[in-house]
Amino acid sequence: MGEHHPCRDDFCRDCDRFGAWYRLTGTLEEARGKAADLCLEQTVEFPSDLVPKGFIQDQVVGQVAEFVPVEGSNGLEWKALITFLNDDTGIELTQLLNVLYGNISLKKGFRLERLKDCFNLWNRFKGPRFGEPGLREITGIHHRPLLCTALKPLGLSAPALAEMAYKFASGGIEIIKDDHGLANQPFARFAERVEHCVEATEKGSRRAGRKILYAPNVTAPAGELERRAHYAKEKGAGALLVCPGLIGFDSMRALADDDGIDLPILAHPAFLGSFVTSRENGISPFALFGQIMRLAGADSTIYPHFGGRFGFTLDECKEIVVGSSINMGNLKPIFPTPGGGMSLKRIPELLEFYGRDVMFLVGGDLVKNGSDIEDNSKHFVEVVEKTSL
Amino acid sequence: MGEHHPCRDDFCRDCDRFGAWYRLTGTLEEARGKAADLCLEQTVEFPSDLVPKGFIQDQVVGQVAEFVPVEGSNGLEWKALITFLNDDTGIELTQLLNVLYGNISLKKGFRLERLKDCFNLWNRFKGPRFGEPGLREITGIHHRPLLCTALKPLGLSAPALAEMAYKFASGGIEIIKDDHGLANQPFARFAERVEHCVEATEKGSRRAGRKILYAPNVTAPAGELERRAHYAKEKGAGALLVCPGLIGFDSMRALADDDGIDLPILAHPAFLGSFVTSRENGISPFALFGQIMRLAGADSTIYPHFGGRFGFTLDECKEIVVGSSINMGNLKPIFPTPGGGMSLKRIPELLEFYGRDVMFLVGGDLVKNGSDIEDNSKHFVEVVEKTSL
Repeated sequence: MGEHHPCRDDFCRDCDRFGAWYRLTGTLEEARGKAADLCLEQTVEFPSDLVPKGFIQDQVVGQVAEFVPVEGSNGLEWKALITFLNDDTGIELTQLLNVLYGNISLKKGFRLERLKDCFNLWNRFKGPRFGEPGLREITGIHHRPLLCTALKPLGLSAPALAEMAYKFASGGIEIIKDDHGLANQPFARFAERVEHCVEATEKGSRRAGRKILYAPNVTAPAGELERRAHYAKEKGAGALLVCPGLIGFDSMRALADDDGIDLPILAHPAFLGSFVTSRENGISPFALFGQIMRLAGADSTIYPHFGGRFGFTLDECKEIVVGSSINMGNLKPIFPTPGGGMSLKRIPELLEFYGRDVMFLVGGDLVKNGSDIEDNSKHFVEVVEKTSL
Repeated sequence: MGEHHPCRDDFCRDCDRFGAWYRLTGTLEEARGKAADLCLEQTVEFPSDLVPKGFIQDQVVGQVAEFVPVEGSNGLEWKALITFLNDDTGIELTQLLNVLYGNISLKKGFRLERLKDCFNLWNRFKGPRFGEPGLREITGIHHRPLLCTALKPLGLSAPALAEMAYKFASGGIEIIKDDHGLANQPFARFAERVEHCVEATEKGSRRAGRKILYAPNVTAPAGELERRAHYAKEKGAGALLVCPGLIGFDSMRALADDDGIDLPILAHPAFLGSFVTSRENGISPFALFGQIMRLAGADSTIYPHFGGRFGFTLDECKEIVVGSSINMGNLKPIFPTPGGGMSLKRIPELLEFYGRDVMFLVGGDLVKNGSDIEDNSKHFVEVVEKTSL
């Protein structure tokens, strides 16, 4: 391992440092100062004149490997590639996130844009257990986008939710997830809901003649989270829904790594919006909903598509798609899973934008008042089939 | 329990709803629309015309209990008190956070400002095990601010960190925490570090003639977190440092609730900055670093004080102080723990701003190049003692 290996090559396999690109605001001088500050703040948290010379100063402290202006920013935005020693992370996701964006999150004008492909570090993480290829294998759908929908509203009983699950499954929607707000409320307790919905999904699956997965929401307090995931597995759930913003990214990683669970994970973005509301602060959708979700073991990354009831732009959606599949060591590509406005009439536009390697999370259009959920689901599948040909 | 109890009384003990204030941007009409949207988005996630009538529409869906303009906003900012059914949360912190700010985090112009005092719900959580009174009891310091410092930089060996701990303890700094970037890196493995630092702190404590606590950073991957906390307890650590932004708030709550650990928790704000960078989005410092930290079991809430190397304003610091002690059922008040710039010469100003009920996290001023850490620490304690009289 080279001691001062610059780590500029995305496919470098001989490197003990990893890197990330940050967007820094300010004049050239201010941004240079921010880059230098970042190198200290994210590692030693010491003023530069107090940092011990030798190993700590030369290796433990972050290093500015590249520094370039952001195009069209008139010299007021800059991009810096900062490298850190792999060992700074202790090869733990919690500390990796801390090095990437811990203290610096509290300062203004620092945005984490993109993780470099650092073969030696990313490969220390298992990442998605199934990824896109695995989910296609399980569902048997190889030629078109997968379809996913949600059981809701909160307040329905377990049998009522199961009745919906049966209809979605009969209509051929591949993955039927809990709404992410279904936890363990008295309206439909987790254990009862899982039993009913697994059974209903299996029944509908037989009717559809295809493998349909039920994904209960296992987002729960510490300890309970693992119990619910194992319970879901034991009862026959086909996937899990998880909100890493609520349980912590590493708790999702632990579920993905658990051989006793062995189920695909759909990651929901609840509570994570504040990271992506600003272009000058936070974490880019590319890094957060693409790269970090993969590092943390998601097989599908749910986010609001442009034009629905949330404010994501088309560029941000595209970023997430790229971040979901760009090279990161051997980590598998995952399914970008846009939701919030996936209506029937937008299918041609959506297919043109996303291509086939996407999972559509369809909501309202399948449960319109007074119409039949099974028929609506079938019709949706048919339109996606036809448009994908 | 009244079915439509308005829950406007902060001390109501007969209520099945809880509430929170949100800041909503836009014209009156836009903000009214946002309030209505929030009621749906945070509960049923259903268009209003599809919400089942009766119990779900009348109780499960959020309700706008108050709606007032923000003073001085010229009709472009509004505050709404939204109430939710306690049962919407399943009485779980993960789902409580989801109801408070899950999906809405992904939309623009919604900021969670303040949790109402909802006796019946907050009392379902244990909150801080020690709080401010407990930490004063343990340390025996009742008449002045507590002092805390950090072992760093990352890259030092366990014996070198322990040597620092010995000097801080000898000098009488009450709580000596790991820097939050010390995890389980090869430079100073967790287990070795804890053994060395506990021993050194005890030795220094005897020299100081007072109880000094060492607080190792147990922020770690799922599973490992609990193991490290129990190991720390077993080896004689006096407190724990935790980053809830990295492990999830509920994982901190679980450590606080664990009778087998039974140690005060210092909560570090790493990775949480994005929630507080905007006045229009995210969560207020009041709610995040005050109220939510308490609900999640922190006994001390660390944040960057105004005028140091971070960008918090004096108003934000004051908010955190109030949120750390304002009535929330029976939850104990906790120590606001400002850091980042707590220099000796600012002590009079800091005491005037904070009064005595504060813990100062002191860094740089104790480890200046070429000077003696024990002497510096003693001097710091003396100045705080004298100025507090």
